[in-house]
Amino acid sequence: MSREKLKSTFMKKGMIKVSVMYPNGEGKNFDMDYYCSKHIPLVGGLLGDSIKAATVEKGLGGGAPDSPATFAAMGNLYFDSIDSFQSAFGPKSGTIMADLPNFTNIEPVIQISEVLI
Amino acid sequence: MSREKLKSTFMKKGMIKVSVMYPNGEGKNFDMDYYCSKHIPLVGGLLGDSIKAATVEKGLGGGAPDSPATFAAMGNLYFDSIDSFQSAFGPKSGTIMADLPNFTNIEPVIQISEVLI
Repeated sequence: MSREKLKSTFMKKGMIKVSVMYPNGEGKNFDMDYYCSKHIPLVGGLLGDSIKAATVEKGLGGGAPDSPATFAAMGNLYFDSIDSFQSAFGPKSGTIMADLPNFTNIEPVIQISEVLI
Repeated sequence: MSREKLKSTFMKKGMIKVSVMYPNGEGKNFDMDYYCSKHIPLVGGLLGDSIKAATVEKGLGGGAPDSPATFAAMGNLYFDSIDSFQSAFGPKSGTIMADLPNFTNIEPVIQISEVLI
């Protein structure tokens, strides 16, 4: 498979990906239905057109057979630039974070990345 | 932004995402040029058409200002099913893992997820 073909269609090189990753653990819970049907649309509504794409994944397992997934869930938002993310997210962060207890008791790991491929 | 619009164009609901995440840390190194120009094409060539898409991201920072990125790099491969991934990856895993020392001294965290959005 060529590198050209490996490239996705919407994640352009240079875009900013904001990953919100929810680590699994004893006593941790995560309501995936609420997350997909309420939280993601809430974030989408608050951040508007600054979001270029969003993806959500549910952890199934680790690399070794029968090992647990490190993250129960991962949500990813794509922006044109760090400035675009920060100016959209800053004023809304309180409202977004206040929704977390509605679907999880996990403190997420947040990472900002640059899309290379 | 509607939920429909948030959906990406190539990651279809139900696809399997294999994330290979390289945690940052003291004394850790990661050669992004080699990773993008040699390792990803190597993996693409070995796994062939079972790979439906691949993405690579470089960690820039954490959620808090000036905090480090949890992962130096994340590589993601998309498959139609777990079976498709396992039957493609199993016979080639040795060759793929043997290439890691060529670009990093980090032991990656591997996670298998289901794409929900």
